[in-house]
Amino acid sequence: MRINQNQIQENNKTSIKTLEEQFNYTSNTLNNKGVDVNAIIKKLQNLQIAIPSWALGAGGTRFGRFSFFGEPKNLEQKIEDIGILNALTHSAGAVSLHIPWDIPEDYNGIKTLANSLNIKFDAVNSNTFQDQNNAALSYKFGSLSNTSKDIRQQAIQHNIDVINIGKKLGSKSLTVWLADGASFPGQNNFQTALINTENSLKEIYATLPKDWKMLIEYKPFEPNFYSTVIQDWGTSFMLATACGDKAYSLVDLGHHLPNCNIEQIVSTLMYKGKLGGFHFNDSKYGDDDLTVGSIKPYTLFLIFNELVYGMENNPNNPDLEWMIDASHNLKDPLEDLLQSLEAIQEAFAKALLIDQNKLKNAQLNNDIVTCQEILHDAYRTDVRPLVAKARLNLGGAINPIETYRALNVRNQLIKERGKYSIATGL
Amino acid sequence: MRINQNQIQENNKTSIKTLEEQFNYTSNTLNNKGVDVNAIIKKLQNLQIAIPSWALGAGGTRFGRFSFFGEPKNLEQKIEDIGILNALTHSAGAVSLHIPWDIPEDYNGIKTLANSLNIKFDAVNSNTFQDQNNAALSYKFGSLSNTSKDIRQQAIQHNIDVINIGKKLGSKSLTVWLADGASFPGQNNFQTALINTENSLKEIYATLPKDWKMLIEYKPFEPNFYSTVIQDWGTSFMLATACGDKAYSLVDLGHHLPNCNIEQIVSTLMYKGKLGGFHFNDSKYGDDDLTVGSIKPYTLFLIFNELVYGMENNPNNPDLEWMIDASHNLKDPLEDLLQSLEAIQEAFAKALLIDQNKLKNAQLNNDIVTCQEILHDAYRTDVRPLVAKARLNLGGAINPIETYRALNVRNQLIKERGKYSIATGL
Amino acid sequence: MRINQNQIQENNKTSIKTLEEQFNYTSNTLNNKGVDVNAIIKKLQNLQIAIPSWALGAGGTRFGRFSFFGEPKNLEQKIEDIGILNALTHSAGAVSLHIPWDIPEDYNGIKTLANSLNIKFDAVNSNTFQDQNNAALSYKFGSLSNTSKDIRQQAIQHNIDVINIGKKLGSKSLTVWLADGASFPGQNNFQTALINTENSLKEIYATLPKDWKMLIEYKPFEPNFYSTVIQDWGTSFMLATACGDKAYSLVDLGHHLPNCNIEQIVSTLMYKGKLGGFHFNDSKYGDDDLTVGSIKPYTLFLIFNELVYGMENNPNNPDLEWMIDASHNLKDPLEDLLQSLEAIQEAFAKALLIDQNKLKNAQLNNDIVTCQEILHDAYRTDVRPLVAKARLNLGGAINPIETYRALNVRNQLIKERGKYSIATGL
Amino acid sequence: MRINQNQIQENNKTSIKTLEEQFNYTSNTLNNKGVDVNAIIKKLQNLQIAIPSWALGAGGTRFGRFSFFGEPKNLEQKIEDIGILNALTHSAGAVSLHIPWDIPEDYNGIKTLANSLNIKFDAVNSNTFQDQNNAALSYKFGSLSNTSKDIRQQAIQHNIDVINIGKKLGSKSLTVWLADGASFPGQNNFQTALINTENSLKEIYATLPKDWKMLIEYKPFEPNFYSTVIQDWGTSFMLATACGDKAYSLVDLGHHLPNCNIEQIVSTLMYKGKLGGFHFNDSKYGDDDLTVGSIKPYTLFLIFNELVYGMENNPNNPDLEWMIDASHNLKDPLEDLLQSLEAIQEAFAKALLIDQNKLKNAQLNNDIVTCQEILHDAYRTDVRPLVAKARLNLGGAINPIETYRALNVRNQLIKERGKYSIATGL
Repeated sequence: MRINQNQIQENNKTSIKTLEEQFNYTSNTLNNKGVDVNAIIKKLQNLQIAIPSWALGAGGTRFGRFSFFGEPKNLEQKIEDIGILNALTHSAGAVSLHIPWDIPEDYNGIKTLANSLNIKFDAVNSNTFQDQNNAALSYKFGSLSNTSKDIRQQAIQHNIDVINIGKKLGSKSLTVWLADGASFPGQNNFQTALINTENSLKEIYATLPKDWKMLIEYKPFEPNFYSTVIQDWGTSFMLATACGDKAYSLVDLGHHLPNCNIEQIVSTLMYKGKLGGFHFNDSKYGDDDLTVGSIKPYTLFLIFNELVYGMENNPNNPDLEWMIDASHNLKDPLEDLLQSLEAIQEAFAKALLIDQNKLKNAQLNNDIVTCQEILHDAYRTDVRPLVAKARLNLGGAINPIETYRALNVRNQLIKERGKYSIATGL
Repeated sequence: MRINQNQIQENNKTSIKTLEEQFNYTSNTLNNKGVDVNAIIKKLQNLQIAIPSWALGAGGTRFGRFSFFGEPKNLEQKIEDIGILNALTHSAGAVSLHIPWDIPEDYNGIKTLANSLNIKFDAVNSNTFQDQNNAALSYKFGSLSNTSKDIRQQAIQHNIDVINIGKKLGSKSLTVWLADGASFPGQNNFQTALINTENSLKEIYATLPKDWKMLIEYKPFEPNFYSTVIQDWGTSFMLATACGDKAYSLVDLGHHLPNCNIEQIVSTLMYKGKLGGFHFNDSKYGDDDLTVGSIKPYTLFLIFNELVYGMENNPNNPDLEWMIDASHNLKDPLEDLLQSLEAIQEAFAKALLIDQNKLKNAQLNNDIVTCQEILHDAYRTDVRPLVAKARLNLGGAINPIETYRALNVRNQLIKERGKYSIATGL
Repeated sequence: MRINQNQIQENNKTSIKTLEEQFNYTSNTLNNKGVDVNAIIKKLQNLQIAIPSWALGAGGTRFGRFSFFGEPKNLEQKIEDIGILNALTHSAGAVSLHIPWDIPEDYNGIKTLANSLNIKFDAVNSNTFQDQNNAALSYKFGSLSNTSKDIRQQAIQHNIDVINIGKKLGSKSLTVWLADGASFPGQNNFQTALINTENSLKEIYATLPKDWKMLIEYKPFEPNFYSTVIQDWGTSFMLATACGDKAYSLVDLGHHLPNCNIEQIVSTLMYKGKLGGFHFNDSKYGDDDLTVGSIKPYTLFLIFNELVYGMENNPNNPDLEWMIDASHNLKDPLEDLLQSLEAIQEAFAKALLIDQNKLKNAQLNNDIVTCQEILHDAYRTDVRPLVAKARLNLGGAINPIETYRALNVRNQLIKERGKYSIATGL
Repeated sequence: MRINQNQIQENNKTSIKTLEEQFNYTSNTLNNKGVDVNAIIKKLQNLQIAIPSWALGAGGTRFGRFSFFGEPKNLEQKIEDIGILNALTHSAGAVSLHIPWDIPEDYNGIKTLANSLNIKFDAVNSNTFQDQNNAALSYKFGSLSNTSKDIRQQAIQHNIDVINIGKKLGSKSLTVWLADGASFPGQNNFQTALINTENSLKEIYATLPKDWKMLIEYKPFEPNFYSTVIQDWGTSFMLATACGDKAYSLVDLGHHLPNCNIEQIVSTLMYKGKLGGFHFNDSKYGDDDLTVGSIKPYTLFLIFNELVYGMENNPNNPDLEWMIDASHNLKDPLEDLLQSLEAIQEAFAKALLIDQNKLKNAQLNNDIVTCQEILHDAYRTDVRPLVAKARLNLGGAINPIETYRALNVRNQLIKERGKYSIATGL
């Protein structure tokens, strides 16, 4: 199923007048403060967030999974789903494939399909945290860090295979999330595991095409519950530095210990030119993989403040690979992703409202109250009209969720795919 | 497969002399301090820990599950497994059934089997956190707390069914773990959910036989990631009080927020006569369900200190239902359970070493150093000879894991059951 | 120093036109959605937050304290400071005294002064966490929970003295924050400490005037680092219930373990009719006592959602005692408090925007996306014009901080009081 | 006051026979397992832990401080106190000075005194988290990271002054704990603060004598409650690397987010040759600064396992500077320190019992159960006889706390110094 431009425009009709009023008011108010609203709109229009191929079906927990209906059964249907998101928002113009869940059978067909929906192939993701049916060796006790050379080799080769798949699709980066670790004290030797991991990553890195990036994710716990080899940004940064210039750290918002100041990590990595990618989600307890902005929207704004600052001030840091990495256990994945896209764009818009010069001056004067007021002024502004306007300019929906529902998309998908189709992935 | 007494005695031969030496030394040392070693040995011998029927197969995480070999395929084989644990330790004389995973097909046969292995039927556990294949209504949005009366009724009836199954087996308590909650702010109304839960529990309670207990578990998060209806001991206590005298709180060690002082909760509940049961495991991050004592053995000791105190000083509190509730993702479940049993017995033995009178005096004098030294003296004592002696007295193995390995139990089970058998459960 | 109405009106002149425009826009937008803006404005005008007498000087940490200038040297000057806040905002019409730091020397004089500034005497606070210079006995090892009857009696009598002071001033409630606990395992007996505390609280309760409330605060840690006698809401609720109908729990936002769902606690206590008071602040790590709304403004909004719901639906719960309880280590306390007042009012205003009927329907339909969108719609609305309008209606400042700075209040205070005056308190 | 050898020997008389029995039993048992007990005893004898000069008086919290009696009034008395600890344990042969609290007035006198007590001068500590009375500029808004060049310069110069003081005493390292950070979002610019800090550290480093080390501490929060410039080991490691070969990270056990795996950090830093020092204490909630081993003794053991491994396998890592960094709020500081010393030695002894070859083999076989059993076997061994024997061999007390009390040391100190003497420091 595809949503076409006309359907969206039709649906926009009822709200376009209200939007224009709200946009004019907001725009005037901001212009009066010296904000360049047009520049912000342009930046919003340019922000494209990748959707991971595994996020289009229902997620679950170790206690089970509740089915959702009309899930995409294959890669084509997953890209179709992203096409729906992109048609509605014009901000989801990329897909991030997970291998082996989504190995294309027909590369040209997939590329043509994606192209027709304005969808690019973003970072490709390897998987060495599960055993595949046909696997010769098991990752039960680790993959890139395993004490067995054969198992490490299998995991290295898998990553190389993933790169090769990505090359055929036009991807330019590999994301490595390593679940390796230990659930019990003594289970592994920290130093051996670290050395093995470093060497394995270097072997993968050696096969990386010149214009590619390798993104190294970190995470403190789960699925291992005592230690994780790449437990924090420091370890990821150390490994990326050891690999070389094309290796970077990747921040997933849910991969931190309680109370961690994530925005400071973002800032440090950008200063060092080593922030390569970003996985968006939200969480209250652990790696809860909830909808972006659903729990701590102010933290999201503070993170975007650092991202905006870094994009302006750290030319040595590359363009980021943005991706949503949430698990949709209870809600329609497409609606959930629309909420996440909205939250990201709002946080970005608000961060762009911050007057960086004023902020710098207040910081130099140690006028903390003013520093905060500058942030509050940006954060408390209702930027929904700006975000909607940016979408509208590109042909998207003023109210994506409303339009999605008005167009009965999910029912249509159920009709096409059947009720009990199940997506590959978690 | 069964382990018989002779096999164990045969295996004990090589270590019995060493044990006797170690026991004599330890016993003398303790007797010189005024400890009644015999009394401790008796208490150790009387401690029986239930094994949950779901803990005998490999567990997993939301990222997957690695197979283990020779898992029990049915309830009979699960009880057989517990029989092995009990033969080795004489401390695992009970099974806790999970319904609907383990509904007996032949009640008399199951009872005869269990009886022949000296295994009692402990608390029965209901399951309203998953949908069963034949379920009329879904628990996706809650069970006992659901806004739909029909769904609540289905969940209530399931609990009543579980009681009825338990009655046929000789169980005397029902454990209710309610996963109900919300993953997003606004998803449910806290008060409505609480009221519905209270009413549902009361309906279940009304069907409880006179000599039964209802145990209400609490947990802060997972599988819901914003809120859980019974989020803490306070809520559990409030609900148990509302239900009546036969309703109690159940403490699972992994169900607390970071840094929580669990031993104080244990103490408060016992003081109020409302601690009904205990689920043992260990954890570093969340509800990690690791082997008992593998992460924080000193905390386990402190908890046992409160349990011992409560058992002596709170006659209004009932006998506790003890159970191990761990998930065996990486290790042979039987070996893992042997480790857990050992850890529980050692913590209990050490807690029994505490001189409560001396401690009380030191507390009255605010002599904190002495208070600590009394606890340290107990904790630093090597109580393994006491625990082994208690086992030996009952015909168990001096070194259960060594014996288990020497007898090639797992290979025997694989031969009998096949390599790729899979247990029901998580 | 006092700020008079004319000074404020003069300062409002430059922003009144902008405010009216913003208010009209916001008001129209909301009215079109069916919101009764006038009702909200009235509720905002009625919200009065108490300022604690200890919050008007610079706070500190155990690593030291950096001086602030022109601090109030006595109770009269503290009330003068609150008068300044109240003149600017008309939302700080109450003072909460801390005894013995602020025992009035001249009751009539103090009452006349407060009355002239429209300031009422809210809850009085006892202090048994420090030894006073003239103290006969030390609270080093506890006060209401102490094993020594004499020390408990001293602490009980102090609380009774505080009630008597409060009676003379027109206070109607006593807040008990008990720091008692232990820094080491074994230091105290949990049950003994709990029993002593319960009995002590009952003795204080027995002296409480008929129209008074006793508010029992809870806190998991600090200044004791192993256990705290009243560690959580469950313990506080249990003690309040044991004392009687006039005893309630008090929630301080900073007094919870990491990741705790505070709004659910608020909801449960209101449902039970046992939420008596609220201490506002914000925190990232522990009891950081930061400016309200400075770290987790969305959580503050969610808490107000429960408060608003409870005030509508729980007639058995009393009117709440609202107080700001922050520590001003780095900023001008008055500016900091103005920020806190603004954050509270905005959170309240946003919570009032939630369409409770729509929310209830979405909840009944398990339409989680809509539940969230209803909350997001309220939260994303820029309510600053409503809050400013509410202030303006009562004669307050449109922009309190700007006005405070324009009027050079701090310099004036320094002139009057001297630079290095130091307030009593933390 | 000094304790002389004879007093100790006299006191040892009553327990020497018991110790010999216990030592023989333990020694035989371990020798039978192939443990080289003598080698362990020697390592225990060689372990010397520095006592910080600020830890000899009563500590406090932001809520106040309870006095302790007979505190050392000056540096001489502090060194005398350490002399008492060292006489009793022969493991506290170093002092770590805090400047400006402990600037010697008479260098030769101090050195002679320390020498006579076998006490060396360990790392010297700078203080830029407080303003001194005569300070020209304030550190309220930061020191080495401050936006003001003058303030940074003052802080740099202070560190250089501290080095110069250390040089006169024979110290060989400087510890920099930087409290700099922010309590509010927006207060500082993370990148600017980091750059300033790096540059300031480099200026200090440039003045470091050739045979000195600079130890860079990290801490996530307190006294700043939003962000800390050097928030984690990754930042510390990055800064140490930027400074040069003589700069190292320093781990303080209390300076981590909840649930952090500290032993893995220790291992990584040693592998990189960048672990320079260690501050021992224990904690349950934050930087609680409790007695070593009082809360999580198993974690302490796991940390020592990594330290022992690193000392064997990481020749590129320097000898560590060991120090106890606890705050003595409730107990006699000297008794508390004796408890800490005992806990450190026991954890060290137990870690030395681990059979590293067996462990490695079990790890290679992924035999997790055996890995754990090896650790458990070491941890569950009662090593008190080994530790006492090591002390006895050097002329120390078999039971240091008992001897301390038997000799009435505190009363003697009160007589000499007066009851209400107060130590400088926190």
